[in-house]
This record gives sequence, structure tokens and C-alpha cells, in this order.
Amino acid sequence: MAAQRKTVTLLEVNPTIRNMKLPAKGVLVSRAAEITQELQQGVPKPFKEVISVHYGDGHAMGMKPITFIRQVMAACFYPELLDSEQLPDDVKSRAKILLQKCDGGSIGSYCDSSGLLHVRHSVSRYIERRDGGVPCDPGDIYITGGAQRALQLVLKMLVHSEGHSKTGVLVPVPSYKQFNNAVQEQGGVILPYHLSEEQGWELEIEELQRALRTARGQKCSPRVLYVINPGNPTGQVQSRKSIEEVIRFAAEEKLFLMADEVYQDNVFGDDCEFLSYKKVLFEMGPEYFHSVELTSFNSISKGFAGECGFRCGYLEFVNLDSQVQRYAQQVNSVECCPPPGQIILDTLMNPPPLSLLVLLFLLQERQASLDTLARNAWLAEQTLNSVPGISCVPVQAAMYCFPRIHMPSRAVQRAQAQGLAPDLFYCLRLLEETGVIADPGSDLGQREGTHHIRFCILIPTETLQVVLSSLKSFHLKFMQEFS
Amino acid sequence: MAAQRKTVTLLEVNPTIRNMKLPAKGVLVSRAAEITQELQQGVPKPFKEVISVHYGDGHAMGMKPITFIRQVMAACFYPELLDSEQLPDDVKSRAKILLQKCDGGSIGSYCDSSGLLHVRHSVSRYIERRDGGVPCDPGDIYITGGAQRALQLVLKMLVHSEGHSKTGVLVPVPSYKQFNNAVQEQGGVILPYHLSEEQGWELEIEELQRALRTARGQKCSPRVLYVINPGNPTGQVQSRKSIEEVIRFAAEEKLFLMADEVYQDNVFGDDCEFLSYKKVLFEMGPEYFHSVELTSFNSISKGFAGECGFRCGYLEFVNLDSQVQRYAQQVNSVECCPPPGQIILDTLMNPPPLSLLVLLFLLQERQASLDTLARNAWLAEQTLNSVPGISCVPVQAAMYCFPRIHMPSRAVQRAQAQGLAPDLFYCLRLLEETGVIADPGSDLGQREGTHHIRFCILIPTETLQVVLSSLKSFHLKFMQEFS
Repeated sequence: MAAQRKTVTLLEVNPTIRNMKLPAKGVLVSRAAEITQELQQGVPKPFKEVISVHYGDGHAMGMKPITFIRQVMAACFYPELLDSEQLPDDVKSRAKILLQKCDGGSIGSYCDSSGLLHVRHSVSRYIERRDGGVPCDPGDIYITGGAQRALQLVLKMLVHSEGHSKTGVLVPVPSYKQFNNAVQEQGGVILPYHLSEEQGWELEIEELQRALRTARGQKCSPRVLYVINPGNPTGQVQSRKSIEEVIRFAAEEKLFLMADEVYQDNVFGDDCEFLSYKKVLFEMGPEYFHSVELTSFNSISKGFAGECGFRCGYLEFVNLDSQVQRYAQQVNSVECCPPPGQIILDTLMNPPPLSLLVLLFLLQERQASLDTLARNAWLAEQTLNSVPGISCVPVQAAMYCFPRIHMPSRAVQRAQAQGLAPDLFYCLRLLEETGVIADPGSDLGQREGTHHIRFCILIPTETLQVVLSSLKSFHLKFMQEFS
Repeated sequence: MAAQRKTVTLLEVNPTIRNMKLPAKGVLVSRAAEITQELQQGVPKPFKEVISVHYGDGHAMGMKPITFIRQVMAACFYPELLDSEQLPDDVKSRAKILLQKCDGGSIGSYCDSSGLLHVRHSVSRYIERRDGGVPCDPGDIYITGGAQRALQLVLKMLVHSEGHSKTGVLVPVPSYKQFNNAVQEQGGVILPYHLSEEQGWELEIEELQRALRTARGQKCSPRVLYVINPGNPTGQVQSRKSIEEVIRFAAEEKLFLMADEVYQDNVFGDDCEFLSYKKVLFEMGPEYFHSVELTSFNSISKGFAGECGFRCGYLEFVNLDSQVQRYAQQVNSVECCPPPGQIILDTLMNPPPLSLLVLLFLLQERQASLDTLARNAWLAEQTLNSVPGISCVPVQAAMYCFPRIHMPSRAVQRAQAQGLAPDLFYCLRLLEETGVIADPGSDLGQREGTHHIRFCILIPTETLQVVLSSLKSFHLKFMQEFS
């Protein structure tokens, strides 16, 4: 006799998963899909299409891929192209080297669970150049199917989920939701620390201390400090002084540092420079460099390539106990191996040598991407700060704008009456009236009583202009309605 | 002041991870790397190279990729090829369709966390054809970065790791180690059930009942039944009767069925047919079809494509509560989206229409791959069964051979004196003397007192001949030494 009742009811889902907060923007995304359908059916709307700027995806918004990368990929996947006139010699020789490094000469074979050793070497040489010669061992590099996977790998290793020793993870507010989900999925405790919007979203060490004190009262053991530099969604770049303070704090409090540095190539603000945590750690002298444990993360989805769909990132362990690192290998090997995005990683970490033609292409394409970002950031900031009731900290890096919306109290009440976070209410109205889908700050975290939205600026400038003018006129109408 | 002691010592690694058993074959793989280096340094050995047949990776062993697949991939990655003479029209039109389905027309953009809807449709139509019309909803298909990720997704959803309600998962012995690792990583309890070597590795329902009774005594709650059909490492194909028995057992005992069907396209034994669990479930009538909860898994790494390196697989949920399925989406979205291997999945699930030229290529290549497997299986079985002290059940499917080694007791004693499992001892000697690296049965699970090795037969026949003759002469010498 077969049972009628389900074996797996909602109550029988793993409680850790069941307790994960579903992101509010799910409502927005579903509504956007309905609106797109309505538009296709000819329902009249004040806009022609939905513009999705609630996440960072340059290619989806019309940015062009880097030619060299795509040519090398094509040649690796279909090696018959190595005999074709269609590809430049630099591309062919790079593809040949990479194919030689694959078992059986095919990109279709498994590789080591940490990625092709050849690519890990390219990554380590890149890191050494980036950090002015600070040594980097390819054995400390783990290539993964996206930086998110790398973050999960470290959390799996470190987070204890049972009893009073549950691991506490210090996480910035605002930050992006996927990291918090990953902590919760491992059964860890999120310990929020607030970035200071008044100080241009700076990380203030007193706030870290406060967050840690508060945590000591909760039944958990704070052991991990997560930082994002350059910031998401804040677009802020940490100074050397700020990084030094964080490192000293981690050393004193015996915290494992997770430095999310996926936006290291997206720095365009005046007088801004990306400094890696590892470089600063090194320059603080052996006392720190040989003791503070650090993992740094990077991704091919960001930078000037923006190859999100290929799912590839990496981490570097600094000072991790070698016995512990064996377990990282073990956890990683459950994944089999990273996907072929590592070919892209290789081309990014080890750009082609001085064949003028190829280099020109690459530099032009790279520069075009960074120029667009810088121009867009300036345009967004100027426009937003000219609108009454919106204020925006200058964006120095990454690919998002995170303006604060000064919401009239009548709007806040209306939202609450509908059981919605005020900025979600705002975003839903924005979507209905303009077709623009932005991310509500309540999903990213913000100080109580403040309201923000996030949108991606790594989009063609013409699209950004549409977004900004839609937002501006919507906001003015909204303020009028609720003032 | 920086601390000298590490923040993360071995004792501070997540206990669930720390308790995972490292596979014995790690020793073999490390030794094989040393031997390869020794060979390069000119150290004389009785063989010229290490032959790695301890895992299934056709491309690594020289099998050729399917042309159509690789051409479509190349065109998607480098769309300039769409204007080239180098690719057939069928390839170009397929690539165009797929690119249209990608946001921004680029394979470099994110897609839905469950994969491109277009590809999920291709998968669902494939499943419907495979199962003779049993309906399949694309909404129940989740594309992932490999079948292993899909298995992890389901385990994450279902496995409770705390207290007496720890989830028990019934797992076949022998089976491959990665699944057991994934269960342990989630904090679940493995409940082994033995397949019957005497009955050609059949799954016997009495043994499932025994395993479940034993489990009731352990402090866990058995809720998941994992089956692999066709079997790994056994190469056995389940009959309709056997599948029906398993389904009835799952229904009676309220177990969630996880059917690992990644070898569904690798069936070559005489009078053997792959029947999906879903099809059999359907044909058992509505009483079962509307109640038994089932997930089926498939992968592009197996079948006739063998594109392991691309990391793509999928699962289909059957009868999963819709509210529960929302959590699957949530867990899945932490991954962002599956890698571009989904392009390959599309070409496999939805092969090109009747352009004779392309179809001919595809069929020839597919048939060549299956013919090789069938021939190799026969060759391996015949050769092994002619060697005294080795017996091998006929291989009907998948891509492995799992012969039993009747080990002399003096060899067992010698191994134990060295602290090694007897079959690991055997495999280490085999590696030293022949360069062949096979998988010890102790890593895969076997009845106490029996010893096996596993090796992959999806390799060129000439390579298999080398493996078999090396194994045969090694074995005879080994028996002589220890008899």
C-alpha cells in the first residue's frame, strides 16, 4: 500500500534550510516576470521593457565580452580551430598550452579538484605581481566554480553548527545576501557590524568592537571576520590605515579573516587604489605576516571580463595550518573539479604577451569597460544627489550604486500597513511605474530607520540614463503622493 | 600584538568535516605522482607510464569528444564563428537559438539558478521520450554544476544533522565514495545495504529490510533510500521487477527515493534495458505514481559524451511537495547558476534534426563509444575470469569493472602487518610493478573478508589490453609470492 501523506513535508525539511530567510526581492522578480508577459500580450504600460539592474551582470546588460578570452575558449573547445585562419597566433598558442595541460589533451576531462595546476601557477604569479612581489604558493590557490563556492568551502571548513560553540561570523551591513545565506546554511551565527554611511561607508573599528562585545553575550563563539573590499553594495575602497586596523583587530581577537576582494579590478574613483589584505599584512612585518590567518577571494564574474555565466573563482589561503588545509582539499574534492571557466581565469591572470594587435584589443576592451564604469558612477552620483530626498555616497569601485531614499513617513506607514519593508514597497512601485527592477536595501541590510536601493551601474551608459531619469521622475511623484 | 598560535587548528575544523574518512586511494594517487616524476627523471621501471584507470574519464584516456557538441560550444563562446564557413548550418542555428535564450545574448551572463529555461524544456522533452510519454514538467528540472551538486542539493534539503532525528540514508555497498562523503558532510548517518555479488550484484529486498531494521536501533531516523542504476562500480542493470520491489519498499517505509541514473546511456549488455524509476513508478498506477517521492539524477559526464570537465548535471523531482520545492530553489540560488555545460546538456537532450551529415557524425561517434564499451566489457570479463584467483561478474552497463580478488591469507597478513587494507596493499603493488592505478574495493565498500578492485573500461581498447595483461601477469606473480 502506498502512502498518501508526503514523506517530506515542509516540517521535515532540514531546519537549517527552513530557517533561511527568503529574499524579499523574490516578490520583485516574480512581478517583473509577470510584467514582461503582460508587455508581450500588449498590455499598455508607461515603459517598453523591464530593466533588470538589481544584480551585477554586465553581459546581460549588453557589455561586450573580451575577444581574446572568447577566442581562446573557442579554440580549446573545438581544437579544429587551431588550424583555422580565423584566430590570431597568440590565441592559438595559448589554447595549445592549455590543452596540453588537460588530461588526454581535452578540456572535457576532469582535472585536480583545486583546478589545473597550470592555471593555479598563473594565478599565483598574478598575485605576486599585484602585491609587488609578496610570495604566493600555487599550492595555496583553490580554483572553484565561482567565488561563492570558494566562500562556501571556507565556511564548511570553519563553521561549527552545534551547541554553544556555534561559530559566529562578523558580517558587514550592508552586504549582499548570498554570503549570509551561506553562513546560515552551515548553521553559523551572523554577527552584523554596520558600515558608516556618514563616513562614506567606512568600516569603523569601534563598531567591530561593539559587534564583538554584543556577540560574546550570544551563545556562540565568534571566530570569523568577513570583509568586502571594494565594497558591495557600497562601492567604497578601504584605505591602508583601515585595513591595518582590521588586521590588528583580527590578530588580537583571534579571528579568521575572510577578505572578499572580487571587485579588486573595478576601482575607478579618484585617488583610490586597491590594496590587498595580503599585501598590507605582509608590510605590517613578520609578526603579523606569519600569524594572521587570511583567505582572499576573487572571481571572473567581476573585473573587466564580467564572465558571470562561466562560474569560476578562486581563493588563496594565507597562513592556514597545513593539516587543516588537507581538509579543504577533502571538502573541495566532493565537487570533482571546477568548470572550464578556469580557461578564462588563465587568460585574465596571465594576459597575452606583447603581440601588439592582441594587446591593443585587450587593453582597449578593458579600458572601455573601466571607463564606462567610472563615467556611469559619476553620472549616477550627480543625478541622484540632485534629487530631493535621495542622497548618494560617491562610488569609488565595484559596480553598484546604493543611494539612500529619505522616505516620507506616510509612505512608511502605507508600506507597513501592507506588511512590506518600506524600500521593498518603493521598489515594487518603481517596477510597476517604470519597469526598473532595483534591489531593496532591506535585503542587503541597513541601519534601522534608513532606506536604500541598490542598482548595478555596469550597464551601457544609455541604459543607465534611462534608469536614472525613470528613477528621478518616479521619486518626485512618489514624494508628492506621500508628503 | 599578533598571536602566534593559529586561530584554526585541526581541532577547530568543523567536526563533521574532520570526521569524514579520507579515501585510501589518496596514498595511491600520491605514489603515482612520484612514480611519474621518477619516470621523467629516467629512473628505470618495468613500464613507461602510469595508466590511471581508477576513475571514469573517457577524454583523459583518449576518447574523442562528439563533434557537434564542441562545434555548438565554440560558436556560443565566440559568436563571430556564426559567420564562418567552418561550421555546419545545423550547428550555427542551434547556437543562435541558445544565444537568444541567454540574457544579453551572451553565454557570459547569469541565468536562472536552475538553469536556462530553454534547456530545462529540452531535458523534460527528452525524459518524456525516454519514458514513453510519461509527463515531465520543466519546472521540476534543476540543472546543476554536475550530478554531484544535484545530489548535494537534495541531501542539504532533507538531511537533519542534530540529535536523535539525524537522517539515516540507505546506501548500497559497494558504491562510490563521493556520495557517502556528501551524506557525512551534511551530518547524516549512512545505513549500508549490501548488493549480492553471487546474484550478479542484484539488489535484494530482504537485505534492504535487514539494513532498515538495524538502523532502527541506531539513534537516527531513516528517511532516504539511495539507489544507483545502472550500478557503479557493479555495472549491473536493475530489472523492472527489482525496481518495483524497491518502490514498494520505499512506499511502505516512507522513504524518499534518490535514484542515481547517471549511467542510463551506458547500457550495452545483452538483453539489458535501462528502465527509469519514474517510468516504472508511473506504470505501477496512480496509487504509487501520485505518492512516492523520487528524485532522479543524470549527468553529461557519463553517457556517450563523457564531458566530465564541463561540470553539468540535472535532477528531476517527482511528487515533491511544492512548498518544499521552494526551498530547493532557495538552496540552489546560493550557487548563482550552473556553468555553460548546460549547452552540452541541450545538445545531448535535444540532438540535431535530420540533417544527414550532422546526424551521421553524431550517430557514428555515439555508436563508436558504445561499441567500445561493450567490446571492452566482454574483453575484461573474459580475461579476468581466465585468471585463477580473480572472478568477475558480467558487466552490463556503466563504465567500470569490479572484479573480486581472492587474496591468499599470507598476503592479507602482510597487508595487515603494514596497516593497509589488503586490496590497497594489492593496488599499491600493482602500481609499483605495472604502472596501473586501480581503485581498491575497500574505498567503495564490500562484504567483510572479500576484496575487489575497480577500474574504468571506457578507455581505448589497446589501453585496456595493456591494463589486462599487466594485471594478469602481476596477479600470477603476486599469488606465487604469497601462496
